[in-house]
Formats: sequence, C-alpha cells, structure tokens
Amino acid sequence: MTTTTAAPAPHTLTSKGQATRARILEQAAELIYTKGVHATNNEQIRRAAGVSGSQLNHYFPTKESLVLAVIAWQAERVLTFHRGERFGHFDSIDAFREWADHYVAYERAYQEGCTLGSLASEIIKTDLDVHEQLAGEFDQWRGIFRDGLQRMQQLGRLDADADPTRLAGLLLAAFQGGMLLAQVAGNNAPLADALGAAIDHVQALTPSQPDA
Amino acid sequence: MTTTTAAPAPHTLTSKGQATRARILEQAAELIYTKGVHATNNEQIRRAAGVSGSQLNHYFPTKESLVLAVIAWQAERVLTFHRGERFGHFDSIDAFREWADHYVAYERAYQEGCTLGSLASEIIKTDLDVHEQLAGEFDQWRGIFRDGLQRMQQLGRLDADADPTRLAGLLLAAFQGGMLLAQVAGNNAPLADALGAAIDHVQALTPSQPDA
Repeated sequence: MTTTTAAPAPHTLTSKGQATRARILEQAAELIYTKGVHATNNEQIRRAAGVSGSQLNHYFPTKESLVLAVIAWQAERVLTFHRGERFGHFDSIDAFREWADHYVAYERAYQEGCTLGSLASEIIKTDLDVHEQLAGEFDQWRGIFRDGLQRMQQLGRLDADADPTRLAGLLLAAFQGGMLLAQVAGNNAPLADALGAAIDHVQALTPSQPDA
Repeated sequence: MTTTTAAPAPHTLTSKGQATRARILEQAAELIYTKGVHATNNEQIRRAAGVSGSQLNHYFPTKESLVLAVIAWQAERVLTFHRGERFGHFDSIDAFREWADHYVAYERAYQEGCTLGSLASEIIKTDLDVHEQLAGEFDQWRGIFRDGLQRMQQLGRLDADADPTRLAGLLLAAFQGGMLLAQVAGNNAPLADALGAAIDHVQALTPSQPDA
C-alpha cells in the first residue's frame, strides 16, 4: 500500500503531464550533476523547472523517486547512444575504436565527464535506496560491450579463450577512470590513453592479427 | 603580500602545533570524504577536531588552504603506499599483480573506494583554485607506474616498443574506474576484472612469454 508516496508511471500521464515530468527531470539532473545530490533541494528544482511545489510533489513524491527517475533518464541516454547503429553492436575492433574516437574528439569531455559516472559517484555516498537500480544500469552498459565481444567470438574475430565479461569490464572501467582523470588533468589525453590501451588489449586477442 | 591569508607551513610549527594541524586535517578529510566539499563547513570541522574557530582559522585561513592540505595529505598516503618496498618500484609483472591483489582482497574496497579518486570527483566540480595541485598528485601516481614500466624495459622485461606512459595511464584509469564500478556493484568483482585485464595487457607485451 504505497499509493500515497508512489510516483505516477510515465505512461499513465497525459502528454502535457509527460512534458512537465520531463522538464522537472531535466532540471533535476542538471542540478544534481552540478551541485550534488545532497545540495539539491526541492525549491531549486521547482524554480528551475518553473513548476509549483504541489506539481513537483505530484510527479516525484519523495527524493528517492526523483533520484530513481534521474538515474533512469541519464542511463536511457547513454544506453541508447551505445545501442545506436553507429557502433554496429560492437562486433568489431573498428566499432570500439570509433566509440573511443567519439569521446576523445569531444572537446568538452574533460569538462563534463560521464553524466552517469558523475551521478554514480554522487549517489554511492548517500543512503538513498537507489543502489540496485544504479547497478542495473551499469550492468546493461557493460552487457552491450560483452554481447559485442561474444559476437566477435562467434564470428571468429576474437580468440575463443578470451573472456568477454572481463574485457567488457576493462573497457567500462577504462572509460570511467579515463573520464575522471581527464577531468583532473583538464584535457582528454588520459581518456585517449586509457581507451586506446584497453582496445589495444582486445585487438591483441584477435586471431592472426596481421602486422600492418 | 599574502601573509594575512597564507596558512603557516607545517615545518614552521611546534610539535604541538603540528599535532593540532594534523588532527584538523584528518577530520576535514573524513568530513569531505563522507559529506562532500560543498556540504562541509568550518563549524563541523571545528567540532570534529575539537579546536576553536580561531585555531582553525590560524592553520587554514581559507577553504582553499584547507582543501589543498587535504589533497596533499590524502595523496601523501597513497603515494607513500605505492612507493613502499612491497611493490619493488613496479619493475615486474608480479609487482603489479601483488598490487591488484592487495586492493581486490581488501573487503571494504567497494565500500570505501579510492580516497584520492573520491576527493577528485568532488573537487573537479568546484571552483576552488586547487585543480593544479590535484592534477600534480595524479601525475606523480601515474609516474610511479610509468617509471616501473620503463625500468622493466631497461631490464628486458617489457617489449621495447611498448609505451610506458600509455600503459601507466591504463593501469591508473582501470584502478579508478574499477573502484567506482565496484562501489556501484557493491562488490569487488569489477575492480578485479579491470585490474586483472589491464595487467594481462602489460603481460602480453613481455618478451617471449612462456605459455604456462
């Protein structure tokens, strides 16, 4: 019987309601990203989104319901991008290089970092009951790489004894760590090094790699 | 002429003064680690360290001087640990494995994360003028790995065409990203995968590696 504090499911909303909910989410995500979860309060979100306190409370009755929705919203953007045709489901080394090049070539990468990674580093310190969902989103992200690497194995593009789960873990960690170190350095070189070397490792596990 | 706002250099303090300064730093580091830079104020630090407002102001006249000292304090611990005899200056694959095993075997790694990485992810969002020092500390950390890998090359333990800077960048990024993903997952497996695979990559670049 949690009806009094449950947020309405997005698909039950009118299109106007969905637009209001999306506007709140976008502003909340931005505030949490720049100020942190703790330092973001209802009043700031309400003003940034231009909604009343009762509207905010209607869509997101608790801080947890709001943070859960922000996680889902940020994750949706990241996962959709990775599932796009551009990367061909990551079933080739070229796809991984294309992916790395995209982020390294993005001039503001070292200023913005990874939206989902930044959110995670904020949330892991809070006692909000949202850790399971956060872990699930990163599992999906890692799963995109792992599925691609498994497909490479099926296609004979990756050694049979390579471990797709472990390699997917390296790629995601190199991305997250590379983004943090790029932000610290104030340039994208640490991201380029980390992703480049991680993909070198996958490439070294491809069968009969020609020398040039 | 910054004498009125400059923090006294630690070596100019009496031993009692040094102890007081260290106590403030320890409490400030803990508060910033758990609550974040923005949410930590003088009153909390003062109470946690059991010092007066004027004492706090004497040792750390500004928030910047305090955050700079916390960075230096956390970095000192991390760098000293990495420079310890245990890892033999990272001039062998075994040393890197020993290093990874240490963190993976530490049960609370996924709860605590990396103290310096957590501090970094906090600070990169602030406008405190401490980014240069933070970048310098991570450069030193990366440098420990790079120097070890260069020594491996000199000893014929790493291929001459391997790039120690790039490999050192992968190792540090895998550590930082692995720590974040371990915290998200609630277990050390992501750290084990990331460090294991990164060191696999270094090992694959060692000359005439026997099969077993």
